[in-house]
Amino acid sequence: MEMDYDISDHPREECGVLGIFAPDESVARMAYFGLFALQHRGQEAAGIAVADGRKIRIHKGVGLVSQVFNPENLSQLHGDYCIGHTRYSTTGSPTVHNAQPYLIETYYGPMAVAHNGNLINAEELRKELLQHGVGLSSTSDTEVITMMLAGAQGDTWEERICSVMPKWRGAYSLVILTRDGVFAIRDPWGFRPLSVGLLPSGGHAVASESGALQTLGCTAIREVHPGEIISLSDSALKVFQAVKPAENLALCTFEHIYFSRPDSIWDGMLVHEVRERLGEALYHQSPIKADIVIPVPDSSIPAAIGYARVSGIPYNVGFIKNRYIGRTFIEPTDSLRKQGVKLKFNVIARNVIGKKVVMIDDSIVRGNTTGALVKLIRDAGAAEIHLRITCPPIKHPCYMGVDMGTYDELIAHNLSVEEIRKQTGSDSLEFMSVENMMKAIGKETGYCNACFTGQYPLAVNHNPLKSGFEG
Amino acid sequence: MEMDYDISDHPREECGVLGIFAPDESVARMAYFGLFALQHRGQEAAGIAVADGRKIRIHKGVGLVSQVFNPENLSQLHGDYCIGHTRYSTTGSPTVHNAQPYLIETYYGPMAVAHNGNLINAEELRKELLQHGVGLSSTSDTEVITMMLAGAQGDTWEERICSVMPKWRGAYSLVILTRDGVFAIRDPWGFRPLSVGLLPSGGHAVASESGALQTLGCTAIREVHPGEIISLSDSALKVFQAVKPAENLALCTFEHIYFSRPDSIWDGMLVHEVRERLGEALYHQSPIKADIVIPVPDSSIPAAIGYARVSGIPYNVGFIKNRYIGRTFIEPTDSLRKQGVKLKFNVIARNVIGKKVVMIDDSIVRGNTTGALVKLIRDAGAAEIHLRITCPPIKHPCYMGVDMGTYDELIAHNLSVEEIRKQTGSDSLEFMSVENMMKAIGKETGYCNACFTGQYPLAVNHNPLKSGFEG
Amino acid sequence: MEMDYDISDHPREECGVLGIFAPDESVARMAYFGLFALQHRGQEAAGIAVADGRKIRIHKGVGLVSQVFNPENLSQLHGDYCIGHTRYSTTGSPTVHNAQPYLIETYYGPMAVAHNGNLINAEELRKELLQHGVGLSSTSDTEVITMMLAGAQGDTWEERICSVMPKWRGAYSLVILTRDGVFAIRDPWGFRPLSVGLLPSGGHAVASESGALQTLGCTAIREVHPGEIISLSDSALKVFQAVKPAENLALCTFEHIYFSRPDSIWDGMLVHEVRERLGEALYHQSPIKADIVIPVPDSSIPAAIGYARVSGIPYNVGFIKNRYIGRTFIEPTDSLRKQGVKLKFNVIARNVIGKKVVMIDDSIVRGNTTGALVKLIRDAGAAEIHLRITCPPIKHPCYMGVDMGTYDELIAHNLSVEEIRKQTGSDSLEFMSVENMMKAIGKETGYCNACFTGQYPLAVNHNPLKSGFEG
Amino acid sequence: MEMDYDISDHPREECGVLGIFAPDESVARMAYFGLFALQHRGQEAAGIAVADGRKIRIHKGVGLVSQVFNPENLSQLHGDYCIGHTRYSTTGSPTVHNAQPYLIETYYGPMAVAHNGNLINAEELRKELLQHGVGLSSTSDTEVITMMLAGAQGDTWEERICSVMPKWRGAYSLVILTRDGVFAIRDPWGFRPLSVGLLPSGGHAVASESGALQTLGCTAIREVHPGEIISLSDSALKVFQAVKPAENLALCTFEHIYFSRPDSIWDGMLVHEVRERLGEALYHQSPIKADIVIPVPDSSIPAAIGYARVSGIPYNVGFIKNRYIGRTFIEPTDSLRKQGVKLKFNVIARNVIGKKVVMIDDSIVRGNTTGALVKLIRDAGAAEIHLRITCPPIKHPCYMGVDMGTYDELIAHNLSVEEIRKQTGSDSLEFMSVENMMKAIGKETGYCNACFTGQYPLAVNHNPLKSGFEG
Repeated sequence: MEMDYDISDHPREECGVLGIFAPDESVARMAYFGLFALQHRGQEAAGIAVADGRKIRIHKGVGLVSQVFNPENLSQLHGDYCIGHTRYSTTGSPTVHNAQPYLIETYYGPMAVAHNGNLINAEELRKELLQHGVGLSSTSDTEVITMMLAGAQGDTWEERICSVMPKWRGAYSLVILTRDGVFAIRDPWGFRPLSVGLLPSGGHAVASESGALQTLGCTAIREVHPGEIISLSDSALKVFQAVKPAENLALCTFEHIYFSRPDSIWDGMLVHEVRERLGEALYHQSPIKADIVIPVPDSSIPAAIGYARVSGIPYNVGFIKNRYIGRTFIEPTDSLRKQGVKLKFNVIARNVIGKKVVMIDDSIVRGNTTGALVKLIRDAGAAEIHLRITCPPIKHPCYMGVDMGTYDELIAHNLSVEEIRKQTGSDSLEFMSVENMMKAIGKETGYCNACFTGQYPLAVNHNPLKSGFEG
Repeated sequence: MEMDYDISDHPREECGVLGIFAPDESVARMAYFGLFALQHRGQEAAGIAVADGRKIRIHKGVGLVSQVFNPENLSQLHGDYCIGHTRYSTTGSPTVHNAQPYLIETYYGPMAVAHNGNLINAEELRKELLQHGVGLSSTSDTEVITMMLAGAQGDTWEERICSVMPKWRGAYSLVILTRDGVFAIRDPWGFRPLSVGLLPSGGHAVASESGALQTLGCTAIREVHPGEIISLSDSALKVFQAVKPAENLALCTFEHIYFSRPDSIWDGMLVHEVRERLGEALYHQSPIKADIVIPVPDSSIPAAIGYARVSGIPYNVGFIKNRYIGRTFIEPTDSLRKQGVKLKFNVIARNVIGKKVVMIDDSIVRGNTTGALVKLIRDAGAAEIHLRITCPPIKHPCYMGVDMGTYDELIAHNLSVEEIRKQTGSDSLEFMSVENMMKAIGKETGYCNACFTGQYPLAVNHNPLKSGFEG
Repeated sequence: MEMDYDISDHPREECGVLGIFAPDESVARMAYFGLFALQHRGQEAAGIAVADGRKIRIHKGVGLVSQVFNPENLSQLHGDYCIGHTRYSTTGSPTVHNAQPYLIETYYGPMAVAHNGNLINAEELRKELLQHGVGLSSTSDTEVITMMLAGAQGDTWEERICSVMPKWRGAYSLVILTRDGVFAIRDPWGFRPLSVGLLPSGGHAVASESGALQTLGCTAIREVHPGEIISLSDSALKVFQAVKPAENLALCTFEHIYFSRPDSIWDGMLVHEVRERLGEALYHQSPIKADIVIPVPDSSIPAAIGYARVSGIPYNVGFIKNRYIGRTFIEPTDSLRKQGVKLKFNVIARNVIGKKVVMIDDSIVRGNTTGALVKLIRDAGAAEIHLRITCPPIKHPCYMGVDMGTYDELIAHNLSVEEIRKQTGSDSLEFMSVENMMKAIGKETGYCNACFTGQYPLAVNHNPLKSGFEG
Repeated sequence: MEMDYDISDHPREECGVLGIFAPDESVARMAYFGLFALQHRGQEAAGIAVADGRKIRIHKGVGLVSQVFNPENLSQLHGDYCIGHTRYSTTGSPTVHNAQPYLIETYYGPMAVAHNGNLINAEELRKELLQHGVGLSSTSDTEVITMMLAGAQGDTWEERICSVMPKWRGAYSLVILTRDGVFAIRDPWGFRPLSVGLLPSGGHAVASESGALQTLGCTAIREVHPGEIISLSDSALKVFQAVKPAENLALCTFEHIYFSRPDSIWDGMLVHEVRERLGEALYHQSPIKADIVIPVPDSSIPAAIGYARVSGIPYNVGFIKNRYIGRTFIEPTDSLRKQGVKLKFNVIARNVIGKKVVMIDDSIVRGNTTGALVKLIRDAGAAEIHLRITCPPIKHPCYMGVDMGTYDELIAHNLSVEEIRKQTGSDSLEFMSVENMMKAIGKETGYCNACFTGQYPLAVNHNPLKSGFEG
């Protein structure tokens, strides 16, 4: 049995994508460093494909960016056009087979695709392709997207992309590489982020998060708009509104809550700042007197800072996180097992002993770690522990490219807030309300809150069929 | 620079294939041991796919069979139906991307294909697929075969295979796995071998060479006939004559000369015995008096035994081959470099000193090692060295799945026999004539001798286009 | 050229050690998890040795704890007695040869040793051993210690340890494993930390840092006193004062500044708390008005919190650290190179734009990264940047087991504070004074401040000889 | 359970050694290629140590020579002096810890040692060292040798070697590297081979077998005499008779029978030729009429050639050996298990069907494979099978560096010849007699035949103690 000490109780993002056009630059090396800045969005596989005007060359593999690439394989990726991908795989063991970008030859030349998101009508589209005689080598919706592009009608890639885009229902932030072009595409609902910026050397880069563009030194960063295709193949960007933006946009709230880097921009807002405001709102929703505010590191730090600021309660460190412990096949001994998360977190006892502690966390998904964290603080001598969560209870799965877990797994689907409080062992538990969350974000609409509310922006099938196939 | 001490001056076979249906047996483990017996046909990648009536599972990788498989990955391959593959890759570095079997999902369910041979009209077929909107992820003709099967018309796999087989021109010994069946297919010209046999446990197995079936304990072994489809999905074999055998069969003579294991049957003949007869014929073609007959190990041993028998000249060992030296990135020192093949071969000097030596080799392809072997014998003190080759001069490339080298590389395309003799430093050099070779084999027609004669059984294109694609 | 993005401008600790006696427990697995909590003290090799009353078994290797151990090798380490080690190697490439524990057989049975520290008279002791006819397989002082123990006089291990301890001059926190015992030893000057605690299951554990004992669930934690030997072989600890504590203790101040985990106790004080006080003292030493206090993550966070508290200047996040980028052989492109540390750090621009920023760092050693960090903040729009360092200028190398760098490398040995300020590009630069630092720590004496003052507690040889030996 | 398909029923040699002095040459690369020629003597670990006049550098590891070395590690081994080693480990899993050469620093500078053989008084010598206060890091007698050299008296290495050599009882062919010298040493009984030769480039090389010297292009090859020390540090060899040769020399007969390469010289004789004579003698010892003589490949080929020559019975190939199958953790299926060695050997049925077959093998040790080979021939249709073994029954273990197995394992210790015949299923079985074997070799005395006769040349302890130590 594999013990996963690394991934705490969080939803799992499925991918990060990146695209670069930079003449006279080593785009593969730029992509390599850019992917490091997207590593948090997927740590199980990585890949880079590069085009030089004639050919596309690719290297991808299982593991972290630093494990997949070395000077040898990177040096063979010549060219001015490039896309890259980091992947989190939701099922089974990670294999190179599922690593992206996905590269094929088409009638119009070679093409590579990298994808963040999930098509909810992939099964239908898949069946159409199979019926048309197209064999598929995986169960991935990215292959469906790729094969549809290969069979699309139109004289240019722009036309061909435009001709199939309307058939795709769901979340897709895509980068497409052709032999002499890079395209960035975002679905009309705007589910997942995608930003574009100007490189210091004169080309352009596109990435899932603006934080990765900042790493590459980009300026003039802006988000790709819902329904847009942006072509990076020239000194100036070419922008097409391929599909009209959806009437009801559906940006993922969880990018604010947890996924995105704090230094990224999402929906025009700095994520760090939104999180500070979420912390402030948490206090205002349910004011309390306490001695210290501590975050669960690292994602809750800005919210805890915000909470401390408006409440006047001092901010300090409560947990020390062991950054080296990750996945391991070693089972702890019985006496260690009883200590639960202590293997990953130690407590600064002096900061909590005898105190009323406000403990800020970003979310409770499966509910399998919060209780152990509360117990750590309790055992260290805290007088009271008041748990504050920067998002509402998560009651519904996500079908837009995030592995939240199933209904069976989601604790808030199965237990009331009071039951959850009891299970965590905290003295009080407060989830952010949907209304206050949106107020803190500063928007009333335009976001997908389906995981909180069950109101999916697109009709979803809760029981998709599985093909008898382990490609 | 990689120094290849392992592959001497021989053509390189491209693949070995294998299929098994064995109810109540661990077919993956059987395939594993069967692939060892086909390892000589491909040492760069290996794969096994298994079906259990519903799903197909696959494992493949770069390296020898013993490197690709372990108890863990093998134990996950459940089922009664199985195909396997060993691969020699002709171009570039070997990657898992090109390893076979090739597995896809089709409208009719999952399907895996493994292939030995080469389609000479792959480029045309490829273009048709691309035009139909099918994206291709490699430049391999096996993917072309697979995608054509995915798009084929017909109610059963037999019908679908029959519907596309007539379009395939060239060499193909194929095994196809579906969720509940294994098919073995041989092209109507009969280029490459394929045999089928009865397993001790009651099922059947098919393999590129009968020697591998012998390893699995098979009895009732027979060759798959040109143009046949054999279905292994039941207790009794089902045999279809899918395409009429070609009027002029074109079995590869080089399977007799070098490729096949000596314990395999090719065209109804034991290869070891054919090689003995080739040795006998070599003596009769040009009788000579000498003191000792030595083979270049290992492939020329039976021919040297035959030569010794009819000539009355004693057979003995001349060369000791180092079985451990293979490919290495270590360059020899200058003084070692001068010794050439000595790193791979030592001489039993006592057996050649002061003697007239007949040295038997199976073929001279690029001509880059024979001279060094002659020099080793000469330096050990041989009085005369008479080189005898069991096949005619190789003057033309092969387009049927064998990497013979290009016109530029083939020494006999560029030099006369006398020039080759001089270059090798031998006192006499005799190639087997085409006529004597066929007489020794015992057939006048039915074989492809294109590499000797340039008379290709099918029209070939000497300059195929390359797509701008490094999938 | 290897680019090291991971290790910023910090001294490098050389080792962490750990020992466990726990009857009826899987001590190897406990050690495995304990070593994770010491991983920050050495990331290049790790090892565990276990004794079962008769034999000692060992496994060690190059890499992180998670890379060196797996269920197979760990399951073979049976027994109740155990020691472990994490290593940072100062010279050359890391090899398993230098990994610890160091295991030998002696006349008194098997013995393994793991060491944190450095003997300054190792060269003399080494020569004595060689002269006595003992061959040495490495240049490590740990082997010298081990061989001296093998040749020591006395009836018990305690006696033998006591007989050689007086000859050792320098820093040594040692754990020693025999076939039925674990000993913990700390040098009489107390250079490096070592703590012992009671395990929940009834045995005892010893570790370089109390934070690791906390991870193992220990209670009743106390530091091993200078000159003590503690035996863990029984239900109660046995404590010997083997050597009288030095008149002038010499605890390493840098354990407070940087090395130790914030949740560890050093000299009776919680390191996190000392760092908060250092931050407070930094403000009091040179008060300033500013808009925001930011730490250089992670080690400066507590000091920044302390600074913010006493100054009233708001604390916030300035840098986002990329936790995935580490060592790589990939060179950045030219345009990336110009950005320096941006690959490892991004800035939260909103928090600094137009502001007077106080930036807290723990130390400046070689001075190769601070300037780039200042520039990141400057480029993000900060109005003024006031750099505050929680320790004095480092002007002298360490010979007690820490790789500070040589005189040539130490920026403060070569430049004045004003010159360093200019080079970093900051608007003001303030190092903590030695006096204020000691006041914040709360002690006047008992610490080694040689790296700041050049006053070494023991006479050191700045130019040790090297043997002609690369074992 | 690991299934070993590679090592058939043979004793296992424990090591090959090699030494080179070659000014102005890349000695490490020469050693690399030389070790390939000694790979058959040890396939579990390999190492090379090189000295440049000042330092010794070493690289060693677990695996084949081709796996342990690469251009990077080899290029770091600078210098003119070199020793190398290939190792077969008799117990436990192979680890780098036990790989040789063994390198230490001594009072006289660095020294590395590689060893083929076994000291029978190692346990006593070990105790003396431990008592002297020397810690030992392994249970290997090579470390004992090395540490004794480190503590030896004398002004030069020659003197020091001479001072300890008389204490060593047993088999040792040693190569010793100092910072500016290479020494080759052979025990006074001459148990194991060691030869020296002149390199084409002017230096000298020493190796366990002359076949390896031939690979390096050596001329003027001669064996190192029993009791000799040869120094390779200069343009001319320096030879010392360190210890008088034993009155009764004890050369290992098994080097003729099986261990040595056929192209090596042992006791002045070409091994291939001795094996031919052993085949001849086998026929003369018990003449028989038969239709075909077949060897068990590869070691019995020369004996079968000799047998065929004097008997007039035709020689031919009976078994085809699979060269790829080796060690594997994959268990065969039940139906495969019944076929036993068929996984490693196929039969050329045509050569044996209906025939009286003489099958030549070099030895029967544990008796676990011969029966399966006989059955293969029987199942292929042989009329009669007459097994002929080129050595006498092996009834006693070897204590001189060969893993023959224990009394319990040795089939001839436990069964009569007739019982062995029955168990193998052969129609007749004839072992070579000791007298005829020695006659074929051409010597009456001077050999160790203890494994056949139980008359050990030195008194041995059949039950050595084991220390409680797994270094």
